[in-house]
Amino acid sequence: MRRFGQFIPNRLNPISFTNTKPKSTLFKLHPPCRYLAAVRKVAFTADKYPHIKRNPNFKEITDKDISYLTSILSQNALIVDNGTNSSDLTSFNVDWMGKYRGKSRVVVRPKSTEEVAKVLKYCGEKRIAVVPQGGNTGLVGGSIPVFDEMVISTNHLNKIRSFDPVAGILVCDAGCVLEVLDNHLAENGYMMPLDLGAKGSCQVGGNVATNAGGLRFLRYGSLHGSVLGLEVVLPDGTILDNLLTLRKDNTGYDLKQLFIGSEGTLGIITGISISTPKRPKAVNVAVLGLSSFEDVQKAFLKSKEDLAEILSAFEFWDFAALHLCQLYGTNRSEFPLGQYPFYVLIETSGSNKEHDDEKLTACLESLLEASTVQDGVIAQDVSQMNNLWSFREGIPEASHKAGAVYKYDISLPVPVLYKMVEDMRKRLEDSGSFGKDKAITHVIGFGHLGDGNLHLNITAKEYDEDVTKLIEPYVYEWTGKYRGSISAEHGLGLMKANYLGYSKSKPMIEMMRMLKKSIDPNGIMNPYKFLPD
Amino acid sequence: MRRFGQFIPNRLNPISFTNTKPKSTLFKLHPPCRYLAAVRKVAFTADKYPHIKRNPNFKEITDKDISYLTSILSQNALIVDNGTNSSDLTSFNVDWMGKYRGKSRVVVRPKSTEEVAKVLKYCGEKRIAVVPQGGNTGLVGGSIPVFDEMVISTNHLNKIRSFDPVAGILVCDAGCVLEVLDNHLAENGYMMPLDLGAKGSCQVGGNVATNAGGLRFLRYGSLHGSVLGLEVVLPDGTILDNLLTLRKDNTGYDLKQLFIGSEGTLGIITGISISTPKRPKAVNVAVLGLSSFEDVQKAFLKSKEDLAEILSAFEFWDFAALHLCQLYGTNRSEFPLGQYPFYVLIETSGSNKEHDDEKLTACLESLLEASTVQDGVIAQDVSQMNNLWSFREGIPEASHKAGAVYKYDISLPVPVLYKMVEDMRKRLEDSGSFGKDKAITHVIGFGHLGDGNLHLNITAKEYDEDVTKLIEPYVYEWTGKYRGSISAEHGLGLMKANYLGYSKSKPMIEMMRMLKKSIDPNGIMNPYKFLPD
Repeated sequence: MRRFGQFIPNRLNPISFTNTKPKSTLFKLHPPCRYLAAVRKVAFTADKYPHIKRNPNFKEITDKDISYLTSILSQNALIVDNGTNSSDLTSFNVDWMGKYRGKSRVVVRPKSTEEVAKVLKYCGEKRIAVVPQGGNTGLVGGSIPVFDEMVISTNHLNKIRSFDPVAGILVCDAGCVLEVLDNHLAENGYMMPLDLGAKGSCQVGGNVATNAGGLRFLRYGSLHGSVLGLEVVLPDGTILDNLLTLRKDNTGYDLKQLFIGSEGTLGIITGISISTPKRPKAVNVAVLGLSSFEDVQKAFLKSKEDLAEILSAFEFWDFAALHLCQLYGTNRSEFPLGQYPFYVLIETSGSNKEHDDEKLTACLESLLEASTVQDGVIAQDVSQMNNLWSFREGIPEASHKAGAVYKYDISLPVPVLYKMVEDMRKRLEDSGSFGKDKAITHVIGFGHLGDGNLHLNITAKEYDEDVTKLIEPYVYEWTGKYRGSISAEHGLGLMKANYLGYSKSKPMIEMMRMLKKSIDPNGIMNPYKFLPD
Repeated sequence: MRRFGQFIPNRLNPISFTNTKPKSTLFKLHPPCRYLAAVRKVAFTADKYPHIKRNPNFKEITDKDISYLTSILSQNALIVDNGTNSSDLTSFNVDWMGKYRGKSRVVVRPKSTEEVAKVLKYCGEKRIAVVPQGGNTGLVGGSIPVFDEMVISTNHLNKIRSFDPVAGILVCDAGCVLEVLDNHLAENGYMMPLDLGAKGSCQVGGNVATNAGGLRFLRYGSLHGSVLGLEVVLPDGTILDNLLTLRKDNTGYDLKQLFIGSEGTLGIITGISISTPKRPKAVNVAVLGLSSFEDVQKAFLKSKEDLAEILSAFEFWDFAALHLCQLYGTNRSEFPLGQYPFYVLIETSGSNKEHDDEKLTACLESLLEASTVQDGVIAQDVSQMNNLWSFREGIPEASHKAGAVYKYDISLPVPVLYKMVEDMRKRLEDSGSFGKDKAITHVIGFGHLGDGNLHLNITAKEYDEDVTKLIEPYVYEWTGKYRGSISAEHGLGLMKANYLGYSKSKPMIEMMRMLKKSIDPNGIMNPYKFLPD
C-alpha cells in the first residue's frame, strides 16, 4: 500500500491505492470473445438506416471469386462464412459499441503488401466493394461493412520493419498494435508520438487512416506532422511506395497527407514510417479539483506558462463523469479527491526529474495560492500515475457499461467548450427524457482541454430513434454555429458522413468528391461512408 | 565590448564581439533596389533553357485584358510594363540569386482574397498563365515567370487578421512578412514555429506554399503539423475557405495539406491559420569545434539525450564554409574558435534559465570530457547569441558573394550526410576544374544536422553549362542511391522539376499529375515547373 506524499503540504491530500488494473483490457475484442453472444443481438446497419441503399454496381461475391482469391493468396488468408462456428465473422461485422453491424461473408487477411495489391487489383476489376479493417476500435462505424462488402483485415500485417535508434524513425506494417510498437520503442528509449485508451488493440494503420489524436497530441502534435512516409495500395492494386525515412522532403505534392485521415476511402495503408520522440526520463501526474470551468481555463493558461516544454497532457472531466465512473467503473480504488464540479489531470514529461518537480510544484503552489485550484494530488510512483490516468481513461468504459452511449467528439474554441455540455443537458432536461429512470440517464463532458477537444457522452437505456432525434442534428448545428469541428479525432465513418456540411463548405466537399472520384473511380473503397450521400 | 564568460572553465575561451549586425538585411530585395543594374544583365530563362517551349494554349495578355482587369480591381493593383522606369518589372522577373529571369509584362497585386478570386476567374476563363509570387526569396526559380506569365503578387495582402493569445493561434494574410509576424507574436509571448535566414523579406504564404523548413524545424516540426487552416483561391476563382482555428479536425480529406508545398501549382494561398508556440523565456547558444563528422554525430546523439525537450537547433558547418565566410562575409567580428574540421551550433530554448544552463553545462562538460568536442563558447547575452547565429546564417550570403552559387538542399540519412560533400569535392578535383583560379572555387557543406538536411553550396566564377554538367545529375543520382530527397526544404521550382524521379516513384509522379490535372485542368498555375516535362 503506497501513499501519496505531501508534495504540496496541507493541500494535496495523501491517498491510498489498492488497485493498479492494467490499461486497455476493455478493447481486446479480437479474436472473437465473450462479447459474441451480446453482439449477435445488434441490429443490422442496413435495417437501422433504411435510406442507405446497396450500390447495385457492386458485384456480389461468388464462389468463383472465393476460389480465385484462395488460389492467389497464402494459406488461411480467407475466412468465408459458411454457417459454422469456425467461420464466424461476427467480430469483423460488429463494432465494439454494438452500434453497427454488417453482413460481410468474406474476410481477407493478406500477409504482405503484395497480397493486398493482388486482392485490390481483383476487386477493382470486378467492382467488389471492400472495407479495410484494423483493430476495429473505431467509434463511428468506419471499419464495419454496411452490406456485404468484403473486409480486408490488416491483422496479419504485423511486422516491425526497422527502427533507427539514432534518428528515432520507425518503419512498420499497418497491422502492428500501437501498444506493441510503444513497448518495442521503450526498449530503445523512444516512444510512439500518440497514445490512446484503445492502444492494446488498435492498429497503427487504423490510427493513421483515422488521423487519431489521443493523449499525447498536446505535446507531440498531429500525425500529419509525425508520419514521414506511407506505403499505400490504391484501389486498382498499384502500390504507392512513399515509405521515406527522412524528416524533410519537399519533392512534389505530399501525397501521404491525403491518406492520413481518409478512413480507408482512397486506398489501404500497408506500411508506415514515423518519427518518434525520445521517451521522457521523468514523468509527473497530478489530478486537481476545481470549482468552475473558468478556473479550468485559468489553470490551463498557467500550466502552459509555467510548465511550457514539459507539459505533456492537460485533460479534464466533470463531476457527472466521475459519478458515472463510480457507478459503473471497474477501477476499484478510491478517487483521491472530494467532490468538485471539475477535475483536471496534468502530466509533465521531461529529462530531469528534479527540474520537472520544481516546475510542477511552483505551478501548483501558485494555482492553489490563487484559489484557481481547490485541492490536488501528485502521483509518487508509476503505479500511482497509472492509477490517476485510469480515472480519466476509465470514463469511456464506464459510459459503455451504463447502457447505450451516444458519443460526440467535438473541437471547439476553449471558452465555449463546456457550454456545449450545459446547453445539451438543459435541452434534454426540458424534453422530459433525461433523469433517473428516464430514457436518457447521463450527460457527461470530458476530454483533451489542451487541444480544445470535448468528448460529450450521453448514455441512454438503449439506442433509440427518439433519443437520437433529441440530440442530432442539434449537437452538430451547435458546433457549426461556434465554428467548431463535428469530429475532432474520431473521424466521420458512417455516423457523421451526412453531417460534414456543418464543418466544411460546399466547395470543400466538392473538392473532396473530386479527389475520391479521381483516385477511386468505381467507389469500391469503404462505400456509404465519409462523404455525404 | 562584451566578453564570453568562462561557462565551462578553461575549455570555452572568452572572446570579444565588436559587431551585432542585424539579421536578414541581404534579402530585402523588394522594392526594386540597388541590385537592379546587376539583375538586368541576368540571362532570360527562356534563352538558358531552350528545350522549354512556351505553351501555345496560353493566351498572350492584350490591352483588352489589361483594361478589363483594371476595371474590376482596386486602384494601383496592376503594374504594366510600358517601357518607363515607373513600370519596371525587373524585380518581379528576376530571382535574388540572378539565376532566373522571366519576361512578364503584367504584375497584379490584389488587395483582398476576393480580388485574387476575380483575377483567377478571369485568367482561368481566358487561359492566361499565372505565377504566384510572395517575397521572391526562393532558391529554385519557383516564383519567377519563365515566359510571359502574369505575376500575381501577394505583396498587398498583408493584414494580421486575428491572434488568440489563449490558444496561440494566428490568422493572417499570405503576404505578411515572416519577421513582422514573429515580432507581433513576441508582444504576446509567442513566436512563429519557423525561422529562416530570409525572414525579413519572405512571406508566410510563400513559406507555406513551399513548405519551408528552416532553423526551428528540429523543435517545432513541419508546417504540415502547425498550419491549422488555409484560405486558397483555386484556378477557376473558387475560394476554398478552410481557415479553421482548431487544433484538431477530422472532417474529410485534409485538403489544406495538398497546398502546403505545392509551390503555387494548384491555387493561390491567401490566408493562413497557424498554431504558434510560446516564446521561450530562456535561450542558450553554444558553438563548438569538432575533429570529425563522426564526432558531430556523437555530439548530436548526446545533445538529444541530455538536452531533450529544450534542444531547439543543432546546426553544423565545415571548415570550408567558415573559410568562405572569412573571405566574403559581412560579419566583421572575429570567429571565436580556432580551426577545426567541423563546427556545431547548439541552441536550447526553455522556460527556466537556471534549469537550462544546468542541462547545457552538464552536456557540454561531458562532450569535452569524452573529447567529442575540442573547444567551444557559450553566448552570455542576446547580442552574443545573435552574433554566434550570424556565423551560421551568414554562410549563404558569403556563398552568394563568392560568385555564381550552385545550391543543393538534400535530405540524407545522417551517417552518409557529409560523404556527399567529400565525394563531390573529389569528383570536382578529379575533373581539374576545382581550385584557386579555376572555374569552381569553393565546395562547402553546412545545414540542419538535426533534421538530416545538408546544404551543399558550390561556388563558381559564373553559371556555366560545363560546370553544371559536372555537378548535375551526379548530385541527384548520388542522393537517389542513398534514398535521400533531392529537395529537403527548398522545393522543386524550375530547377529540380525534371529530377523528381530521383526521389519519387513513377506511380507517385503519375498520381501527382492526376491531382494537378484535376485541380488545374488548363495548367495555368505556375507552368513549366514542379512536375517533370
